[in-house]
Amino acid sequence: MGSRVFMALLHYPVYNRVGEVVATAITNLDLHDLARVARTYEVERCFVVSPLKRQRWLIEKILNHWRKGFGASYNPTRRDALSLVEAVSTLEEVKGLIEERCGAPPKVVATTARTHEGMMDYDTLRGHILKGRDPYLLLFGTGWGLAKEVLQGADILLKPIQMGAPFNHLSVRSAAAVILDRLFGDR
Amino acid sequence: MGSRVFMALLHYPVYNRVGEVVATAITNLDLHDLARVARTYEVERCFVVSPLKRQRWLIEKILNHWRKGFGASYNPTRRDALSLVEAVSTLEEVKGLIEERCGAPPKVVATTARTHEGMMDYDTLRGHILKGRDPYLLLFGTGWGLAKEVLQGADILLKPIQMGAPFNHLSVRSAAAVILDRLFGDR
Repeated sequence: MGSRVFMALLHYPVYNRVGEVVATAITNLDLHDLARVARTYEVERCFVVSPLKRQRWLIEKILNHWRKGFGASYNPTRRDALSLVEAVSTLEEVKGLIEERCGAPPKVVATTARTHEGMMDYDTLRGHILKGRDPYLLLFGTGWGLAKEVLQGADILLKPIQMGAPFNHLSVRSAAAVILDRLFGDR
Repeated sequence: MGSRVFMALLHYPVYNRVGEVVATAITNLDLHDLARVARTYEVERCFVVSPLKRQRWLIEKILNHWRKGFGASYNPTRRDALSLVEAVSTLEEVKGLIEERCGAPPKVVATTARTHEGMMDYDTLRGHILKGRDPYLLLFGTGWGLAKEVLQGADILLKPIQMGAPFNHLSVRSAAAVILDRLFGDR
């Protein structure tokens, strides 16, 4: 039982190094690592969001190599993982696809390395997901993190991974792995 | 108090896709992601092991870009993280460097996605590290994982991340992040 879980990697709107809202370019290994994390922790679908048509074309080209091309027979476990990934234009579109699939819009959970008021801890969120009915959507930002408007539009802000640590600059690949493990790992 | 902790990413001896022992090529993002994980969870040093001189040269070239070159001023947090990374030729050399630094050889902890007899769980290892005096060295394998000889030579085999899961193929970047978080994360 419990909620169905989705994740999305946003390339827009996110911050760049100097705090401007930008669309970042995709990173090949993000697709692989997030797909493998999604598959390991039984996330239903991993959306990769970019408003740039040429970037979505590139994502599909990479995915097709592993899902249908040479990569599919070369490495079947990679095919399995990347079959969960889908390129979409906007966060709104992601929510719409989930609602279509599940019959209810997702509870949106934003992740960030910065501290905000009223953040939720991992055990509480796990509890909600395990006993919930509505789908959940975990959002991850590329670049220097999700823009303020995304955090403000989320239903839940998840606590940073190492809140008190002097250094708190994990890659989104590492952060997604840790967060999925904290929520769904068999420990 | 507690033990000093080190990690090493091995490019040899590891398996390739068909089970042969090989030396793999370095992956740029492994250096960044593992350095950032090491820095976040306060690992003392992250050794990157390759027997190939040309590969170690390449590692140093990447490290120098971020530690001394343009990258150092462009992204100081990346400089901080990559200052923990050191390229070495062999696992024996890593052990020697740690013994020199700490006055005792490290307890070697091998990680693997496969199940073996007598594996240690995360809470037990955390307990040993917290109350220990000898340094600990966590080993991570590239390619299709650490060769048998490395596992057999280790003092401790750590349990796989998702032992019972049908899919268990995380990248070494994801696996290292999850393992460090399970051992040292503030949850």
